[in-house]
Amino acid sequence: MIEIERKFLVTSNVFKDRAFKSTRIIQGFLNRDPERTVRIRLKGDNGVLTVKGQSSNNGLSRFEWETNIEKHEAESLLKLCENGIINKIRHEIKVGNHFFEVDEFFGDNQGLIIAEVELQHENESFEKPIWLGKEVTGQIKYYNSQLSKQPYISWE
Amino acid sequence: MIEIERKFLVTSNVFKDRAFKSTRIIQGFLNRDPERTVRIRLKGDNGVLTVKGQSSNNGLSRFEWETNIEKHEAESLLKLCENGIINKIRHEIKVGNHFFEVDEFFGDNQGLIIAEVELQHENESFEKPIWLGKEVTGQIKYYNSQLSKQPYISWE
Repeated sequence: MIEIERKFLVTSNVFKDRAFKSTRIIQGFLNRDPERTVRIRLKGDNGVLTVKGQSSNNGLSRFEWETNIEKHEAESLLKLCENGIINKIRHEIKVGNHFFEVDEFFGDNQGLIIAEVELQHENESFEKPIWLGKEVTGQIKYYNSQLSKQPYISWE
Repeated sequence: MIEIERKFLVTSNVFKDRAFKSTRIIQGFLNRDPERTVRIRLKGDNGVLTVKGQSSNNGLSRFEWETNIEKHEAESLLKLCENGIINKIRHEIKVGNHFFEVDEFFGDNQGLIIAEVELQHENESFEKPIWLGKEVTGQIKYYNSQLSKQPYISWE
């Protein structure tokens, strides 16, 4: 399927009071190439393998395919991943009629907080909460696959 | 799981008379790195996604994990793969108590025929059919992932 998402930096911690769910995510990459990213994710006790293609429409749309896998399978596959395992908490927040996923990073990406909102249409409008900062949709350095290779701590 | 396999070149076409099944395989790679190979395969109408790790024991053993996927999923994922889609017919042959998989390659790998026998133990003996040639177990250039990048036609 094709996903339509917009991505923003988050400027304060006030979003945390609004989260209805917060889940630890550990993820690694079997390929970090943005044209054929292969991600292994452990979200709580649920494993998932995801393949993403190159983005189009200025980064708004991207082919994405995923399949659920067992926790122990995810753990085995994480051992094969490139260096640079991502550790984050995903906070899920409802704002107006939309759901935001806000990722609070740890480890070498500590300090970075990124919000994503999934849309049905490219031009769909949505309510912007006060903690939403600069838009970074389509900027490859904010892809998790790239944060795995060049973490926030290493940025100028 | 860990697979134990030995791989051989095939020196003649007489094996074809013994095949109880022959199936077209189309496969590509989302990652060709031997440490974390990600393969998409369409075998007849059946899709499969396979992850392989680095080999050990002189190439005898290799971590392998796979999951079945739908034909249309395999077709979508093949479009994301690296250049160098592999096209081959797999012939399945029983010799004594063992099953051999003999891959007859087409396209840029035309002329290459490789047989694999799967073993339960590293030192397990098996009957060698007359068409079995030089052993190439563990030689990375015979990995399908490498034949995708450097096909038989390009060898010296």
